[in-house]
Amino acid sequence: MLSEKIHPFMYDLAQRSAKVIKPYFAHPDLEVETKADDTPVTRADRAAERLMRDHIEKHYPQHGIIGEEFGEKDPEAEFVWVLDPIDGTKSFAAGCPLFGTLIALLHNGQPVAGAIHQPVLDQFCFGDNRTASLNGRPVKMRYCPHLKDAILLTTDIRNVYRHQSGPAFENLVDSTRLFRTWGDCYGYLLLASGWADVMIDPIMNPWDYLALVPVIRGAGGVITNWQGGDPIGGESIVAASRFIHGRTIEILNEH
Amino acid sequence: MLSEKIHPFMYDLAQRSAKVIKPYFAHPDLEVETKADDTPVTRADRAAERLMRDHIEKHYPQHGIIGEEFGEKDPEAEFVWVLDPIDGTKSFAAGCPLFGTLIALLHNGQPVAGAIHQPVLDQFCFGDNRTASLNGRPVKMRYCPHLKDAILLTTDIRNVYRHQSGPAFENLVDSTRLFRTWGDCYGYLLLASGWADVMIDPIMNPWDYLALVPVIRGAGGVITNWQGGDPIGGESIVAASRFIHGRTIEILNEH
Repeated sequence: MLSEKIHPFMYDLAQRSAKVIKPYFAHPDLEVETKADDTPVTRADRAAERLMRDHIEKHYPQHGIIGEEFGEKDPEAEFVWVLDPIDGTKSFAAGCPLFGTLIALLHNGQPVAGAIHQPVLDQFCFGDNRTASLNGRPVKMRYCPHLKDAILLTTDIRNVYRHQSGPAFENLVDSTRLFRTWGDCYGYLLLASGWADVMIDPIMNPWDYLALVPVIRGAGGVITNWQGGDPIGGESIVAASRFIHGRTIEILNEH
Repeated sequence: MLSEKIHPFMYDLAQRSAKVIKPYFAHPDLEVETKADDTPVTRADRAAERLMRDHIEKHYPQHGIIGEEFGEKDPEAEFVWVLDPIDGTKSFAAGCPLFGTLIALLHNGQPVAGAIHQPVLDQFCFGDNRTASLNGRPVKMRYCPHLKDAILLTTDIRNVYRHQSGPAFENLVDSTRLFRTWGDCYGYLLLASGWADVMIDPIMNPWDYLALVPVIRGAGGVITNWQGGDPIGGESIVAASRFIHGRTIEILNEH
C-alpha cells in the first residue's frame, strides 16, 4: 500500500471518528464507565471504533484490525490496522481537549504509517517514517540542540514514579526549560509539529504507541523505549529531537 | 453596575479579544518575545489588550483599567477593569489550547465579576460571586466530598517546589485521584464548570487571580491563598470544592 493512498484513507477514518466524538466533548451528560483494567471508557470510544472498523472492513476486508475497545481480527495478516478512538480518555472525560484518535497501519508487524487526530481542534498529524504533515502541510521537529531549551512533556507523573526512577525524572525536569503534562497522543503531535521537544511515557500499550512511531520518525525525531532501544514490543516511550534524545536517555537511566 | 449589564459587556470584550488571538494560535510563524520579567509575550497579547482597553474607554471613560501589557489607568477609580488578554502565554506559545483571556471588574477594590474565555474552544465562563455560567448555562462545582476522588490541577510543578513545600505537594498528589498540569486560567474554568476539583497556584499576580475569585465563588467553590486566608492581596491561590478545601489547605501546610 502506498503512502499516497494511506494518508487520505486515514484522514477519512479520523473525520468519521471525530463526527462521533466531538458532540460528547465537554458535554455535561457524558457518562464514563470504568473497564476491567480500571481505565475509563465512554460511549464515544465504542461508537467511534465501531465506525472505523466498519469502514476498514468494507474497503480492506483482507486486512487485520486491532482496536482498544473491540479486540483483534486477523492480527497476523500482512496488513493490520491498529485503532485507539480516544487516546487520553481521562482528559476527554474531564472536559480537557488534550486527547486524540490514533490510527496505525502495520505491514508484517512493523508500523509503516500513523495518524494522530485531535477532533475538537481538527488537527490531523500523519507520518510514514520518512515524512510527517499536519493538516497536509509538511512538519518537522524543531531544532533544539540543548536540553536546557527544551519543552518536556509526559502524560502522568505518578506513572513515572511508579514505573521508573523518580529522582532521575526530577533531574530531567530540572534540566529543561518547561515541563507540562500535555499528555497522551497530543504531546506527540506537539513534538512532531515543532512545538515541544521531549515526550516521555513510562508505561504504554501497543495501540498507544504504534501510531506514534511513524509520526515521530517522519518528523525527524528519535523514538525509543526508556533504555534507548527499539520501542516496538516495549512498554515505555521516549521521543525527542535527535540532538537531545541521547542525553535524555542518559539522565533517565542515571541512578 | 448590575451583573445583567456586566455579563454581555464582558462577553463582548472576550469576543473582540478572541478575534485577534485565534488566528495566531498554533500558527507556525508566531513570534514570542521575552519581557523584562522573563515572561513571554506575543503580538496577540498586545493587540488583544489594546482592543479591550479601547472598548472600555469608549463605553466607561470614568472607569480605571489595569492590564498586564499596558499598565494602569486610574487604578483608584470606583470601578476598575483588570485585563489579561492571554493568561497562559507559555501554553499559547507552545501551540497548546490551555490558555485564556481574563477579565475582572473591581468595585472599590473588590472583584464583583470575572470572566475566563477560551478563544479556540469558545468557552466563556462568567461569575459574579453568587452565580456562575458557561456559555450562558448555569454551572456549579461538582459534588466531591472526598479528596481521593478529586482531580487536582496546577500550572507548573516547578513553581510549587520553588515557592512552597515539595513534600507537602507530593502528599497532596498522592491523596487525589488524578493530577495534571492543565493550568493557568483553564484549570479554574474546569473547576467552575464541574470537571475538576482542586486547583493550586503557588505564585500569582493580581491580574491572574482577580477574575477567578467571582467565578469560583459564583460556582459554589472556596478560593483562598495557600494558608486558607483572603486571596485578595496575596500571591498564591488554592481553589477547591467546599467539602475538600479545608483538607487541601491542611495537607499543603503540613511539614
